Amino acid sequence: MIPFSYQNVILKSGFLYDKQMLNENVTINAVYNRFYDTGRVSAFACDWKEGEPKKPHIFWDSDVAKWMEGAAYILHKKKAPDLEEKIEWIIDQIEKNQCEDGYFNSYFITCAPEKRYTNRDWHELYCAGHLMEAAVAYYEVTGKDRFLKLMEKYVDCIEKAFVTEKTAKFTTPGHQEIELALVRMYRATGNLRYLKLAKFFIDQRGYEPDIPIPKSTQSHLPVREQTEAAGHCVRACYMYSAMADLALETDDRELYEVCKTIFNDIITKKMYITGGVGSTRMLEIFTVDYDLINDKAYAETCAAIALMFFAQRMLRFENDSVYADLIERILYNGMIAGLSLDGKSFFYENPLEINLRNYKRFLSREHSERFAITQRVEVFSCSCCPPNLNRVLSSLGNYIYGYENDTVYVNQFADSEAEANGMRIVQKTLFPKSGTIVLKTENVKTLCVRIPAWCDEYSVSVPYTMKNGYAVIEAPEGEITVDLKIKPVLIQSNPEIYENNGKVAVCCGPYVCAGEAIDNIENLHALFVDKNFKAEASYDDSLCGYTVSVKAFRKEASPMLYSAFSENFEDFTLKMIPYAAFANRGETNMCVWFGVR
Amino acid sequence: MIPFSYQNVILKSGFLYDKQMLNENVTINAVYNRFYDTGRVSAFACDWKEGEPKKPHIFWDSDVAKWMEGAAYILHKKKAPDLEEKIEWIIDQIEKNQCEDGYFNSYFITCAPEKRYTNRDWHELYCAGHLMEAAVAYYEVTGKDRFLKLMEKYVDCIEKAFVTEKTAKFTTPGHQEIELALVRMYRATGNLRYLKLAKFFIDQRGYEPDIPIPKSTQSHLPVREQTEAAGHCVRACYMYSAMADLALETDDRELYEVCKTIFNDIITKKMYITGGVGSTRMLEIFTVDYDLINDKAYAETCAAIALMFFAQRMLRFENDSVYADLIERILYNGMIAGLSLDGKSFFYENPLEINLRNYKRFLSREHSERFAITQRVEVFSCSCCPPNLNRVLSSLGNYIYGYENDTVYVNQFADSEAEANGMRIVQKTLFPKSGTIVLKTENVKTLCVRIPAWCDEYSVSVPYTMKNGYAVIEAPEGEITVDLKIKPVLIQSNPEIYENNGKVAVCCGPYVCAGEAIDNIENLHALFVDKNFKAEASYDDSLCGYTVSVKAFRKEASPMLYSAFSENFEDFTLKMIPYAAFANRGETNMCVWFGVR
Repeated sequence: MIPFSYQNVILKSGFLYDKQMLNENVTINAVYNRFYDTGRVSAFACDWKEGEPKKPHIFWDSDVAKWMEGAAYILHKKKAPDLEEKIEWIIDQIEKNQCEDGYFNSYFITCAPEKRYTNRDWHELYCAGHLMEAAVAYYEVTGKDRFLKLMEKYVDCIEKAFVTEKTAKFTTPGHQEIELALVRMYRATGNLRYLKLAKFFIDQRGYEPDIPIPKSTQSHLPVREQTEAAGHCVRACYMYSAMADLALETDDRELYEVCKTIFNDIITKKMYITGGVGSTRMLEIFTVDYDLINDKAYAETCAAIALMFFAQRMLRFENDSVYADLIERILYNGMIAGLSLDGKSFFYENPLEINLRNYKRFLSREHSERFAITQRVEVFSCSCCPPNLNRVLSSLGNYIYGYENDTVYVNQFADSEAEANGMRIVQKTLFPKSGTIVLKTENVKTLCVRIPAWCDEYSVSVPYTMKNGYAVIEAPEGEITVDLKIKPVLIQSNPEIYENNGKVAVCCGPYVCAGEAIDNIENLHALFVDKNFKAEASYDDSLCGYTVSVKAFRKEASPMLYSAFSENFEDFTLKMIPYAAFANRGETNMCVWFGVR
Repeated sequence: MIPFSYQNVILKSGFLYDKQMLNENVTINAVYNRFYDTGRVSAFACDWKEGEPKKPHIFWDSDVAKWMEGAAYILHKKKAPDLEEKIEWIIDQIEKNQCEDGYFNSYFITCAPEKRYTNRDWHELYCAGHLMEAAVAYYEVTGKDRFLKLMEKYVDCIEKAFVTEKTAKFTTPGHQEIELALVRMYRATGNLRYLKLAKFFIDQRGYEPDIPIPKSTQSHLPVREQTEAAGHCVRACYMYSAMADLALETDDRELYEVCKTIFNDIITKKMYITGGVGSTRMLEIFTVDYDLINDKAYAETCAAIALMFFAQRMLRFENDSVYADLIERILYNGMIAGLSLDGKSFFYENPLEINLRNYKRFLSREHSERFAITQRVEVFSCSCCPPNLNRVLSSLGNYIYGYENDTVYVNQFADSEAEANGMRIVQKTLFPKSGTIVLKTENVKTLCVRIPAWCDEYSVSVPYTMKNGYAVIEAPEGEITVDLKIKPVLIQSNPEIYENNGKVAVCCGPYVCAGEAIDNIENLHALFVDKNFKAEASYDDSLCGYTVSVKAFRKEASPMLYSAFSENFEDFTLKMIPYAAFANRGETNMCVWFGVR
């Protein structure tokens, strides 16, 4: 299917709308202000001098570029002269400082011009890619092509250095991004050279000489020979997204099959229940199958976003609900956990468990193992995640609907209106507060409504058939009501995930639930959910999701370290909140996977 | 009670006897040979020159000294001219190279004479202490006092540097050992100055200036103000042992109460079921209460030994079975796990779980978390544990019996004969293969037999009363039979140990059991012991303990990462072996704590 563009979808209320509004009203400015404070914005003026504070950093351009992209999408919905002015100022700087040959990178221009294209790990093409995405977005929204033209010049420079003259000291970037950005440049301009250059970077991978840890940068094999997700999760999923784009644009069935194999590898062996990926901060990589440790989960916000991008691309090939299910899982859990409820602060890592005791195990920082921070912060030194949230949240419209010929797909549930290709759809719903969705279409021959994998009780007010997870309604007329029963359910994980054996998670509709000590007891591990599951859920606006009370047991305290096995438990009501809302009420233990008995 | 000395106890058969013989026949030579190969022995000649291989190391003297002590105990039981010759050669070197003022340390004499007593962390007093213990042992066994005299001269030098003239650049040693060694020197010679010097080092602790991480060396507080076990586990337990020695010798009730408080802190909050202590390799410390991680357990062999030393000292104050119970736990589990079944190789760390998958999580060594080695090795660069096993195994007689006036205590079960203070006891048993113990005494007014905490079914063939865990038999006559039922039991841990919640261990008599993948399945975490416990045990000579077949369940495999909770299990027979016998049949996953349902 072809996703409806954010340009053709208007969100009107509900979870996704609320998060989009939070971004427009708070987050977009919060991120800009921190980027301004830290010198990221002014770095574009390329006038930093040795000895001054706020020395530019190799990846700062990408931070600001993602913010620009996020701000651009907002301009589509409303006039925002302040945002536009900020974007224009940055474009001014790029125009002013771009090298004769098209090169632009505020760090290298200012601090190390002679080092241009000498080290694949210095993020130049990554920064370039994000600038290109921002330029495309700004062009799409405003029709102004100044930024896009600057970036076209930049592509010329890159093409020359990497393909025509091969002056660059490496062949593929250490951090992928340019690949999918070039496809966007191609789609925006129709210039086939950009698509070819994207293909060049993809096809070169695996043939580079002398990469110290090739697997971490997906360079262990030519991409067409890769069969599992490997290496740095964000880089990987950006690359898989580009591969899917290329497969689509060049009708490359082989490449599509690789994408499909890798996608299945991720969702059947390497993904947290939250949609997070990456189980170690060491190189931020996919590790081995079923290695999904909870308290040291890396699960970077950007990695969840990158996986969502990949899933969204896979929808183009296959009208299967598995992709939209995953997008929903990420939107409501693994991604949005990265943003505080007030929209001002961020997690980079999103663990599935916090045990404050672990933070106190060691006597000094040098002798400590590393755990994730327990409270969100306003900016990181490596602050890739916050502006990534900016751009996703302001383009959420991309994920709601899709179409193929005269069939419309409802992928996400959100009070909204949309149109594309002469077709129109209105979705009226309080989702996720309610599972009742009322749909009305115009000029649509077939309407396909995703029945989420989490829902085993649903009804559709008109005749339908099920196909690949969608309720297929032919010749839809009038108001069609789809009722999805949202209720708490008990989930187990694959027994190969050894951390979770003997444990369960509670989900409620699209939400993964978490228990926090603040609502329960400090030692969450002494709590066991009743296997005769009994739970009550109610929607809490302040937490943007359901709170769930679960019948549980608490293992009775003992003065002994070790004693004869007994089944002494007290009844306990385990109070759970949406996982993504954790750590919004102070530092406290948190747990997703609980014992069961 | 006063323990019977190893000099007055003859082991005749059974587990402890077998391990003692293994040490005499194999381990004592295995350790010597590796120490010889690595240059540790020849270092005593103090003729190493810059540029030569095998540069001496600051703690090598202690390695060899512990071996000497172990070899000395063997000489008590039998003529062993080869061992005696080796010991004498080393003593020759000490005599030849000892400084005028009594100082001896092969490293500092050879490599850095000007650095003497300049850094508390350079193990000088630790090495000195071990040499003194070896000298005392050699004197006790052979009556030869040359080594002891050399060490007396060394004490003079230490006293001068640390007390009289205070030329040393620090006040207390970074690694405790000298304290308890000085008490032994005092007991062997009657020289009160040695006791006073021990007291000096104990009393100074907590008052040292400028120690970077005081808690790791028990210097965070004066010892009399300490209330919990803290810091490096071996150093801690050596210090607590010395404190108990001092409390006894100086009738210091306050110090005894500190020991008691700390001992209880360890056994109720900080000890593995194996008797191991130390849950992190970072500084090798006691961490926080109930922090007893399994796969990263540090549980150093030396720490188990040190805790046993501490328990043995506490027995002097209190005739309570808790101490002998702990000694048994360590002897059969946490300590002996450090030695391979063939007596030739060693563990330093003794984890309670091995997941080989964890070792493969990372793409390179530099980016890896550290896990324990999975197979024992013949020597370590820091090889403190192997000779510690030497000296404990050749002096096991110390732990079997105790007396107070005309009361004799049976602390450990072992086919043996013993005498002390005009009293005699013969213990006939196949223990641990059988729980039947036949006791015969001479000149004993009261016989106290420990009823182990693991035993809830037992009988005594004559009238008895129970006191502090001992069956008290007045005026014992003829053969007295004590029957201890040895059977598999299911154990749970304190719910505060969060790693073990929802899990159980299986024990059988004095043994903690472990499951290895080689006998079961690779993913041991998919196995759940039936809470309606059903198990069969049989003694396996080759594993020096019981194998146990446990009724269990195996969680059924699933193609999904996450799915609705179900109770799909297959029946499974979990095969377990003695924990200490793990890793003797190749590299394989291992687990002590299993799920239960």
